[in-house]
Amino acid sequence: MIPDSGWFTEICEECGSAFSIKLKEKVHEEQTPYQYIEIYETETFGTLMTLDGLVMVTDKDNFIYHEMMVHPALFAHPDPKRVLIIGGGDCGSLREVLKHGTVELAEQVELDERVTRVSEKFFPELTESNNDPRARLHFTDGIKWMADAKPESYDVIIVDSTDPVGPAAGLFSEAFYRDCFKALRAHGIVVGQSESPLFHASIIKSMRGALRAAGFQDVATLNFPQCSYPSGWWTATLACKDASLSDFRQDAAAHKDFPTRYYNPAMHTAALATPEFFPEALG
Amino acid sequence: MIPDSGWFTEICEECGSAFSIKLKEKVHEEQTPYQYIEIYETETFGTLMTLDGLVMVTDKDNFIYHEMMVHPALFAHPDPKRVLIIGGGDCGSLREVLKHGTVELAEQVELDERVTRVSEKFFPELTESNNDPRARLHFTDGIKWMADAKPESYDVIIVDSTDPVGPAAGLFSEAFYRDCFKALRAHGIVVGQSESPLFHASIIKSMRGALRAAGFQDVATLNFPQCSYPSGWWTATLACKDASLSDFRQDAAAHKDFPTRYYNPAMHTAALATPEFFPEALG
Repeated sequence: MIPDSGWFTEICEECGSAFSIKLKEKVHEEQTPYQYIEIYETETFGTLMTLDGLVMVTDKDNFIYHEMMVHPALFAHPDPKRVLIIGGGDCGSLREVLKHGTVELAEQVELDERVTRVSEKFFPELTESNNDPRARLHFTDGIKWMADAKPESYDVIIVDSTDPVGPAAGLFSEAFYRDCFKALRAHGIVVGQSESPLFHASIIKSMRGALRAAGFQDVATLNFPQCSYPSGWWTATLACKDASLSDFRQDAAAHKDFPTRYYNPAMHTAALATPEFFPEALG
Repeated sequence: MIPDSGWFTEICEECGSAFSIKLKEKVHEEQTPYQYIEIYETETFGTLMTLDGLVMVTDKDNFIYHEMMVHPALFAHPDPKRVLIIGGGDCGSLREVLKHGTVELAEQVELDERVTRVSEKFFPELTESNNDPRARLHFTDGIKWMADAKPESYDVIIVDSTDPVGPAAGLFSEAFYRDCFKALRAHGIVVGQSESPLFHASIIKSMRGALRAAGFQDVATLNFPQCSYPSGWWTATLACKDASLSDFRQDAAAHKDFPTRYYNPAMHTAALATPEFFPEALG
């Protein structure tokens, strides 16, 4: 038995499974206008943030997710200068974006300012670049932001969202991707987290279809481990406006002037490799 | 709360985490001279076998583990004819080995015959090749088998064992690897499951050191997702007697005349890619 006391447990109904993390103590909780935030200190995962009872980030394994949401897209783009992050309130993706010297502007549009303020307190590593002069944090609706965005104003758009239910569902729609397409400049790339290949293949398939329908010329799904998300295996799906995603700036990635813990050019290529069951399952 | 009733739960003490699978019913249990076997029908993972309360195999995700324990080693060998499996009582690795037309003999040495007999009843897919004329099943101690093995009698040795505690601990020792080295012919390869890179890096490091100390010229660690094992991220470590493991029979792998669901040449290369933190963590 896993009791409620002393453990955090997330049940994934569609997976028929649950993942539990042993806790030291709850250090913060609050109801925001949008969701319930809880922060725990854990035995082995460092600090844990949950939103409405779902794991968002842990100290232990967030590096894989954040690095894979950012570096493949930025190294696949020839010269990423203007980057937009939709969601991403814990600021881990923003930090990775700002490691790139080519980036002149990194805008982040998070619905819930409290997620960012709480992260600033409990995840100082993830938020360490929030005061970078290239960073601009907006707290408003990402779907409306994209609908209003100036055409050809971004090089890379990163959709670092919660699961495609509730307010985040619109971030997986063809209409939203059309707005992304319009807002991207030549060679522009959008990337979004796309759930587990073992349990959510239909979501990935539908997302890939919506991206193609919105006009993107190439679509690619990266897969990588993510211990604290359902099934421990996760994906990000990229789409490029007008070029192939098979190529990326390998030399720049090999000689990057910043540290990573998971990403390198070999892992970029590895994440693009498609297990034998992918083509049929992901359409 | 995850109650005992209706759920199977495995707690990983050193991970500070637990993984639970929703059950339909328990369909079998028995105490053997070696361990306690339980078989469940689950909501979404198909049939589940546990040994002493630890997940061994589920219908849902065993294909990744079994394919990655077998095909990289067999395609890295120029002409694998004689294959030995130590452990592997569920016979899933044996089935993958026998898919290779080069294989003339596949011997399996499992300590606990009951694991195989129970698997024949509850995992008919995994055991479907047990009557292949090239297969020979022995039920005895694998450590002693290796100590007594004729020199230069195998091309590939697959150590498909439980965790390195209790009776399986000896399967991770330098002495055992020396016996493997002796029993392998030229170009011979040994491969063993080597736990989670996120939580058991010290085991992988010690295993790699023991393999090198035993005389193996090249050592490589493959990483792949495995949802139902702790952390959802797993490894297998290969060692070759006298050649590099970077090369493998890519053409043969690309034109294999048997189906797989995870393995293909791109996934072989992908699994060999080393995340940025591996070199330091794995020594």
